[in-house]
Amino acid sequence: MSKIAVVGCTGAVGIELVKCCHARLSVFGTESPDLYASPRSAGKVLDTPYGPLTVIEFNIETLKSKSYDFIFLAVSGDFSLKNAIPLTTNVNGTDTYVIDNSSAYRYHSDVPLVVPEINFDSIAQMNSKLIANPNCTTAIAAMALYPIHQQFKIKKLIVSTYQAASGAGEPGMQELLDGCKAHVNGETMPENKIFSHPLPFNCIPMIDKLQDNGYTKEEMKVAWETRKIFRTDDIKVSATAVRIPTLRAHAEAITMETEKDISPMAVVECLKGKPGVVVEDDPANNVFPVPLNCSGRDEVSVGRIRQSLIFDEKGVDLFVCGDQLLRGAALNAVLIAEKLAQK
Amino acid sequence: MSKIAVVGCTGAVGIELVKCCHARLSVFGTESPDLYASPRSAGKVLDTPYGPLTVIEFNIETLKSKSYDFIFLAVSGDFSLKNAIPLTTNVNGTDTYVIDNSSAYRYHSDVPLVVPEINFDSIAQMNSKLIANPNCTTAIAAMALYPIHQQFKIKKLIVSTYQAASGAGEPGMQELLDGCKAHVNGETMPENKIFSHPLPFNCIPMIDKLQDNGYTKEEMKVAWETRKIFRTDDIKVSATAVRIPTLRAHAEAITMETEKDISPMAVVECLKGKPGVVVEDDPANNVFPVPLNCSGRDEVSVGRIRQSLIFDEKGVDLFVCGDQLLRGAALNAVLIAEKLAQK
Repeated sequence: MSKIAVVGCTGAVGIELVKCCHARLSVFGTESPDLYASPRSAGKVLDTPYGPLTVIEFNIETLKSKSYDFIFLAVSGDFSLKNAIPLTTNVNGTDTYVIDNSSAYRYHSDVPLVVPEINFDSIAQMNSKLIANPNCTTAIAAMALYPIHQQFKIKKLIVSTYQAASGAGEPGMQELLDGCKAHVNGETMPENKIFSHPLPFNCIPMIDKLQDNGYTKEEMKVAWETRKIFRTDDIKVSATAVRIPTLRAHAEAITMETEKDISPMAVVECLKGKPGVVVEDDPANNVFPVPLNCSGRDEVSVGRIRQSLIFDEKGVDLFVCGDQLLRGAALNAVLIAEKLAQK
Repeated sequence: MSKIAVVGCTGAVGIELVKCCHARLSVFGTESPDLYASPRSAGKVLDTPYGPLTVIEFNIETLKSKSYDFIFLAVSGDFSLKNAIPLTTNVNGTDTYVIDNSSAYRYHSDVPLVVPEINFDSIAQMNSKLIANPNCTTAIAAMALYPIHQQFKIKKLIVSTYQAASGAGEPGMQELLDGCKAHVNGETMPENKIFSHPLPFNCIPMIDKLQDNGYTKEEMKVAWETRKIFRTDDIKVSATAVRIPTLRAHAEAITMETEKDISPMAVVECLKGKPGVVVEDDPANNVFPVPLNCSGRDEVSVGRIRQSLIFDEKGVDLFVCGDQLLRGAALNAVLIAEKLAQK
């Protein structure tokens, strides 16, 4: 049975982390995780599947004295930079696995960046107690793309995203809902504070900071992280990351060129039975991945699989969708801990 | 001064057609267009910029007796198939230009498919009185892409769309608003009738009918129509057409490969001063095309121009956005008539 701490427990990802742990009582045990947050939230009582739990004020010495098996960080990159590595060692000399949802350590060559169905073994290879959880867009696409890459070797990936408000956390979701409510009730939309433009009835083709090459960090994450998780430098990746007025599932239109001949039927065969992926591809009957159907669901859905009109027999187009808070964050992190606990 | 009829005047495109004509009084004259619709709408009085106008029941003999200069069709493809060609000739032997918004004649080799800034001369070349108005997604992208194609020769286009509810007309926009209203007020969302899935807080990666190759007709229109308007068979085009919960402006993420070397700066130079296009590309200051800013606006906005990470110096990525009812429909049609009237 595992001793678990969730740091940043009041946020959208923190709440899902607690739920994902509770869904695995047989792995982690029935003891509830300890929930940590900033002084502002300390003392609050959260309604969780374990029952009501009181939020504890984060203090690094408190955590280091408790010898947790797993600490999940659902906090800012700056917080992780300061605390993630110190939290891997405890006052009694034991080690703790720290699984970090921020991007702080994702690109460090000695920190594994893990989708457990793909490169779980990189944790042992790197002999690291700190594990980075990937960007949501990357993790969702990777579930569909890695089996295809193994069989057909992907050379080029062109990704256009349809990203939900939850990528900006609970305040992002609330800003979308408040703005929609004002609009449909004929009131003035409240000023946008979380997003750079109003999100209701709009889309915003810029997520995260601008990089020197003109791409955003969110777009470059898809390139950097896909290559790191797939352990190859040979895939060219270009992304356009766009926020749309959906609540908690990301979708992505993906065009790929492969080294080997590929076909839609071969892709369906390839993905059949792969853990964490479902093919939903019957457009004649309106069956394809859509965010509302993927919200609250563990699996990534893949559909609209077509032979490429650009790369012909060496390419396919497809559409993927997955819950941003689950596969894109909390579920992926908890599945890493689950595999570590079962070793 | 021109005698004008608008057939299908009560729909979202019909209403914009009347507004676009009124915005060109110096071209078409101050006389109001005659407004035609089905028996269901006949007798209704519409509030227009010309003042209140009464809807006349469509009857082909009535129109053929009136010798209009221009008849705009904002009706179904089936209606156009039946009436568009007969309407080009009048009982007194004169001819009428019929500008059809449906897809009925777009792929006929003897019917010009026209974006007036690009291939207006194809009307004279084909000596046709029937003129097809392009698909909205195609027309919006073409405004940005044609100048680039002329200078750098486009070889491959990969397009992912972010299409507004207005593509399904006024009922589509109303279904989106009604659904949002129910959702934010905690009521059950009314059943979707216009769209194949609920559109509020969702996106739907399927627009128009499925084709044999697994692409939708909306996706293939972008390929077929771009090649016809650009008068080339040498561009490979692949599109993923996705409906998102926006009201009346379409956006598109576009990746292209060109024959000649290209750069973001060269694209900005190339588009400078081109009619109907504005470059809005200063992401550091949150300046890029977004649907809310492009709604009700004649110009197509282009931004997020980046060197391709796939095609390197032979490619760029960009994001375009334009009003679906204006450049994507009514404005394009009226600009065709304007150029014909000024000849």
